[in-house]
Amino acid sequence: MGVVIQLDSAGKKRASIEPLVKLVQPDMERVNEAILARAQSHVELIPEIANHLINSGGKRIRPMLTLAAARMCGYRGDHHLKLATAVEFMHTATLLHDDVVDESDLRRGKQAARIIWGNQASVLVGDYLLGQAFKMMVETGSLEALRILSHAACVIAEGEVLQLSVSQDTSTTEDAYLQVIVAKTAALFSAAAEVGAVVASRPREEQAALESYGRNLGIAFQLIDDALDYSGSTEKLGKGVGDDFRERKITLPVVLSYRRGSKEERSFWKRTLEDGNQTDDDLGYAKKLMERHGAIADTIDRANHYGDIARDALAIFPDSPWKESLLEAVDFCVARAH
Amino acid sequence: MGVVIQLDSAGKKRASIEPLVKLVQPDMERVNEAILARAQSHVELIPEIANHLINSGGKRIRPMLTLAAARMCGYRGDHHLKLATAVEFMHTATLLHDDVVDESDLRRGKQAARIIWGNQASVLVGDYLLGQAFKMMVETGSLEALRILSHAACVIAEGEVLQLSVSQDTSTTEDAYLQVIVAKTAALFSAAAEVGAVVASRPREEQAALESYGRNLGIAFQLIDDALDYSGSTEKLGKGVGDDFRERKITLPVVLSYRRGSKEERSFWKRTLEDGNQTDDDLGYAKKLMERHGAIADTIDRANHYGDIARDALAIFPDSPWKESLLEAVDFCVARAH
Repeated sequence: MGVVIQLDSAGKKRASIEPLVKLVQPDMERVNEAILARAQSHVELIPEIANHLINSGGKRIRPMLTLAAARMCGYRGDHHLKLATAVEFMHTATLLHDDVVDESDLRRGKQAARIIWGNQASVLVGDYLLGQAFKMMVETGSLEALRILSHAACVIAEGEVLQLSVSQDTSTTEDAYLQVIVAKTAALFSAAAEVGAVVASRPREEQAALESYGRNLGIAFQLIDDALDYSGSTEKLGKGVGDDFRERKITLPVVLSYRRGSKEERSFWKRTLEDGNQTDDDLGYAKKLMERHGAIADTIDRANHYGDIARDALAIFPDSPWKESLLEAVDFCVARAH
Repeated sequence: MGVVIQLDSAGKKRASIEPLVKLVQPDMERVNEAILARAQSHVELIPEIANHLINSGGKRIRPMLTLAAARMCGYRGDHHLKLATAVEFMHTATLLHDDVVDESDLRRGKQAARIIWGNQASVLVGDYLLGQAFKMMVETGSLEALRILSHAACVIAEGEVLQLSVSQDTSTTEDAYLQVIVAKTAALFSAAAEVGAVVASRPREEQAALESYGRNLGIAFQLIDDALDYSGSTEKLGKGVGDDFRERKITLPVVLSYRRGSKEERSFWKRTLEDGNQTDDDLGYAKKLMERHGAIADTIDRANHYGDIARDALAIFPDSPWKESLLEAVDFCVARAH
């Protein structure tokens, strides 16, 4: 990652993910070992594909949430390691299935597994990792964690199906869009954080607080991702800038630009995203329209709104380095866009 | 189904699945209700696809095993209904993902979901049903059932990946082939039967007996399926005769014919199944080679061997109509080939 504390132009300390990364490091090393161990199988293709994804430099933000939430709640056992590993496997399985669904060529800047090994292997290795995730949850003996994470698995799949049905529809409302990202992204963030309180046997109030923190952080995270897809650099993003445009995804910057645009502009969005009729200059023009209507700035604004809710959700917890680092993680997620 | 007790040419009563179907009927009606209820979602595409598969006339043999095993063990609660529903959902999810992996056009004689709704929806609705399956298991509160079924989910996926890697390799050994079907078919049969004992809180010995019964029945079932693909009628099979040949699957009839064949015959198998270079006459010639080497008869023989093991596994249970019907189900599975 190499994100260091920097001063921004106003001389303010820049938000960083480093404090969180440092605090969870000892736990995360054990999670990384578990990830490698649990992706093993006598069927060679499974560890091969799993390792390709696992080593491709994801930030592991979801398992970090589980680890930090459990520690903030004072947990001293090691079941949170299994839950964190399970959460990362659920995420990895989703990525594998997503690539098949999206027909993506790149994943985190590397060739997608489906390009190297085919759609078939991506579907099946995803299923395998999902099965392993449930096995690990069972090992913790926590029916409540199982309930939360199996529910999240349903909601994520529902969100993906919903995305299919709104895809390439430029008249998608902001609400419909939000419904999709709450399900496909925020559900796992919220479950990941919530099970931290569950494993620590904390009262329902703290469980709900972490659930809310995770959900709102997840929404903010996805909104910023969507903004970066039009404003970031490929290097920073680990995927190609303009991927969403080329894949004709309807994200908030598009939703806002379409609604605020003229009749001619709406025709442009319909042609490029609904009809899929794109020329080389279209991405540049799309960015110009977004700038004209403040669509990127307002997407970041919306992200800030959810970030605020995430921060407030943690207010009931006493001060601690864990809490501090979880709060700063929110700032970092939102600040990525700058 | 309409399978009735018939006399075969020797005047012996023909094995039937009807006694089992009748005994489980009251329970199965509730499972069918649960299947419809749990395949609901506010995302319309999900019940649409799920109902397409659910109503397409599968025999529901796996949930029947759970129901009958639990009842044979004297269970009087209703958690077995949830486990049976979960088992059928796991199976349905596998079918959806299988169709994507196999690129099948037909499923149980109807258009495969992936042809109507696309690969994307098949992958995601499969994921949704898998999530629902785990939610239902959690509701029973049985960590042991969760352990057994999540383990089965891993083994099934492993088996499918293994099948990918042996596919189109005519020199596959009988052992390698068995390893594939033990994983991809028998694992769910065995888990389905085993959780019947678990939900009834029966001793480990009975749990192991049902696990063995289910596994060996599953192997026999798959072997007969593979034989029928070359010897059955499309009507009886619910899929096209010769599908395995056209999809270049290596099944036991092929493994035996290849091993027992001449050099010229091996070239035929290599051309048609490895190179995928098939003409209209090839299926007929393949059947002729199988007949020449007794490959179908011996596949059925092997199935009988596993059927015997399945029957013996139930010996420790006292006589009851439930036990009778489970024993006759084995005979029925094997007798399908005649």
